[in-house]
Amino acid sequence: MTRIDDLPVRDELRGKMPYGAPQLDVPVRLNTNENPYPAPEDLVRRIAERVAAAARDMNRYPDRDAVLLRTELAAYLSRTAGLPLGPERVWAANGSNEVLQQLLQAFGGPGRSALGFDPTYSMHSLIARGTGTGWISGPRTEDFGIDRDAAVAAVHEHRPDVLFICSPNNPTGTAVGPETVLALYDAAQRAAPGPRGALVVVDEAYAEFSHRPSLLPLTEGRPLLVISRTMSKAFGAAGLRLGYLAADPAVVDAVQLVRLPYHLSTVTQATALAALEFTDTLLSYVEELKGERDRLVTELRAIGREVTESDANFVQFGRFADAAAVWRRLLDHGVLVRDNGVPGRLRVSTGTRAENDAFLDAIRAVTKEISE
Amino acid sequence: MTRIDDLPVRDELRGKMPYGAPQLDVPVRLNTNENPYPAPEDLVRRIAERVAAAARDMNRYPDRDAVLLRTELAAYLSRTAGLPLGPERVWAANGSNEVLQQLLQAFGGPGRSALGFDPTYSMHSLIARGTGTGWISGPRTEDFGIDRDAAVAAVHEHRPDVLFICSPNNPTGTAVGPETVLALYDAAQRAAPGPRGALVVVDEAYAEFSHRPSLLPLTEGRPLLVISRTMSKAFGAAGLRLGYLAADPAVVDAVQLVRLPYHLSTVTQATALAALEFTDTLLSYVEELKGERDRLVTELRAIGREVTESDANFVQFGRFADAAAVWRRLLDHGVLVRDNGVPGRLRVSTGTRAENDAFLDAIRAVTKEISE
Repeated sequence: MTRIDDLPVRDELRGKMPYGAPQLDVPVRLNTNENPYPAPEDLVRRIAERVAAAARDMNRYPDRDAVLLRTELAAYLSRTAGLPLGPERVWAANGSNEVLQQLLQAFGGPGRSALGFDPTYSMHSLIARGTGTGWISGPRTEDFGIDRDAAVAAVHEHRPDVLFICSPNNPTGTAVGPETVLALYDAAQRAAPGPRGALVVVDEAYAEFSHRPSLLPLTEGRPLLVISRTMSKAFGAAGLRLGYLAADPAVVDAVQLVRLPYHLSTVTQATALAALEFTDTLLSYVEELKGERDRLVTELRAIGREVTESDANFVQFGRFADAAAVWRRLLDHGVLVRDNGVPGRLRVSTGTRAENDAFLDAIRAVTKEISE
Repeated sequence: MTRIDDLPVRDELRGKMPYGAPQLDVPVRLNTNENPYPAPEDLVRRIAERVAAAARDMNRYPDRDAVLLRTELAAYLSRTAGLPLGPERVWAANGSNEVLQQLLQAFGGPGRSALGFDPTYSMHSLIARGTGTGWISGPRTEDFGIDRDAAVAAVHEHRPDVLFICSPNNPTGTAVGPETVLALYDAAQRAAPGPRGALVVVDEAYAEFSHRPSLLPLTEGRPLLVISRTMSKAFGAAGLRLGYLAADPAVVDAVQLVRLPYHLSTVTQATALAALEFTDTLLSYVEELKGERDRLVTELRAIGREVTESDANFVQFGRFADAAAVWRRLLDHGVLVRDNGVPGRLRVSTGTRAENDAFLDAIRAVTKEISE
């Protein structure tokens, strides 16, 4: 039998494993920050309608520029994120992973580097690797925030071509304020290795769950500031794979030089448009989830756990002498959470009220078990 | 206003334009090798059913490994392409472009090179550029075939890490025989720059339209031979963006090291599964199109045009002193064909009988105009 290592794959891939959380069949799955609410039946019907209409033309290539979808995404951002903008400032792809990959293909790549503040969304460094971009790990504070001076110093030291700021940050839940983003943007431009500056990408995958407003308005007048978003979380559409960005129109033009033509299928475009029609309903679920997230924080603290402040739909908690052992014990109780490799910590996604109760019962039991 | 050239994009992207044929609103569009037959109504209904069922779980991530879809694609290949195989030998992505991109991310990339025989599908060299892979242009004969000795010599001279063989070839329609593929596979292994050999990718996007059997059986016992396929053409599903490959299971494992996690949405998987249920119906359209393709060849020759032998759903014809001028004249007659930049030639996709008649009327008229 041939194995990967017998093949002429790139050296940096040897011995590596594919990225991805275990997909286990467990009663309570709170490990991938999915939205626990299924699409309401009238949205399901609307998706079927729009997809059927699109399927009648499926023999034709999709709208390569996805203009209608970008127009509706721009309208959504204009209404909810504090900056009116049009489709020329929005780009969409198959998940924010593909958006970030396109950005790194255009602005990163061989001979260039990206800096992010670890622990952060691990796909940032993986997509850097996949595009041949060097990865530099920047500092976080003890409580997983970004210290402005230390972060600016790291930018000046490493002079990255691309700077990632994940806010709210995955897996910690930590949000970053606008003053820090502006300081980092300015530092990235001053320290940029080339004459045309450095790209700063704010990954706002969890923005709708935050206590703070979106950082989108900062893109005004800053052509190298990009906000990346997703419909996976707030729109309850992880299965749809629809990510998007908002930035200067020139950045949108630039990613079109590297995007695969017709990357976004007609069925994806149709389904996303249907979901956007249901924005108000879906955002009402987000409000419920924010309440549940805050409840998780309160209850975890009540049983003596250390909890990182969360602006996302998940909560990082600890500390444990052996987080992997606690992860397994929770699984024994029928609850799947995420071990992101942050020492002493685990991450739990906000589920339905019943799922959160099940998790809280399980963590209370496990806390008792490990203290005995 | 900021322009792309003001941004810190990679040097090799400066001055470039996004790939893509003009999307013009013209009565007869025969420029992108789309299948002219819309999905039948019962397929549209089945897509709506399967997508609605999938949409109820859309808050969850898709099956990351798309096992059910790969099983059905494997069954389709087993039944039609001369080699029984299982899902472990099949991989799927958003269009064969993404399949090829994943292959080049794993087996090409910076410091490595890919060789293809130009003129060929231009995305091969563009995806090479996008992944930092060097591109080497191999030779074709006067009639756009691959001369075995000349091709083998080119492989020995350039020692590529990845070899592309497009059969039937886009934009010429030319098919390659199994003996030539075997000779090139052996040459690629002997000339490989590393100890583990070179990857050989046979792009069979148009295989179902060929007079020849698929080259898939050649993958048996050849772990570095990959067949790439698409549902865009034979399944009339360009809008779906579903490409796939068949290869040794180790190659399938290798692309999973570079694929973006959850790259294939639940709606894409559901729609593709619905289309596969209608394989027999859709392949009957392919038979009609093959007849129409042969008619285009015959009729074009009858009016004195030089036509390249075609095993695809399109026909390359010429020669013209000024192919671009003929392209414009055909557009004036309401018919959009493709100018691929092959000197003196144009490419026309096979449409419905009525569309082909409209094209033939137009080319007869234009032939008369330019000879006056």
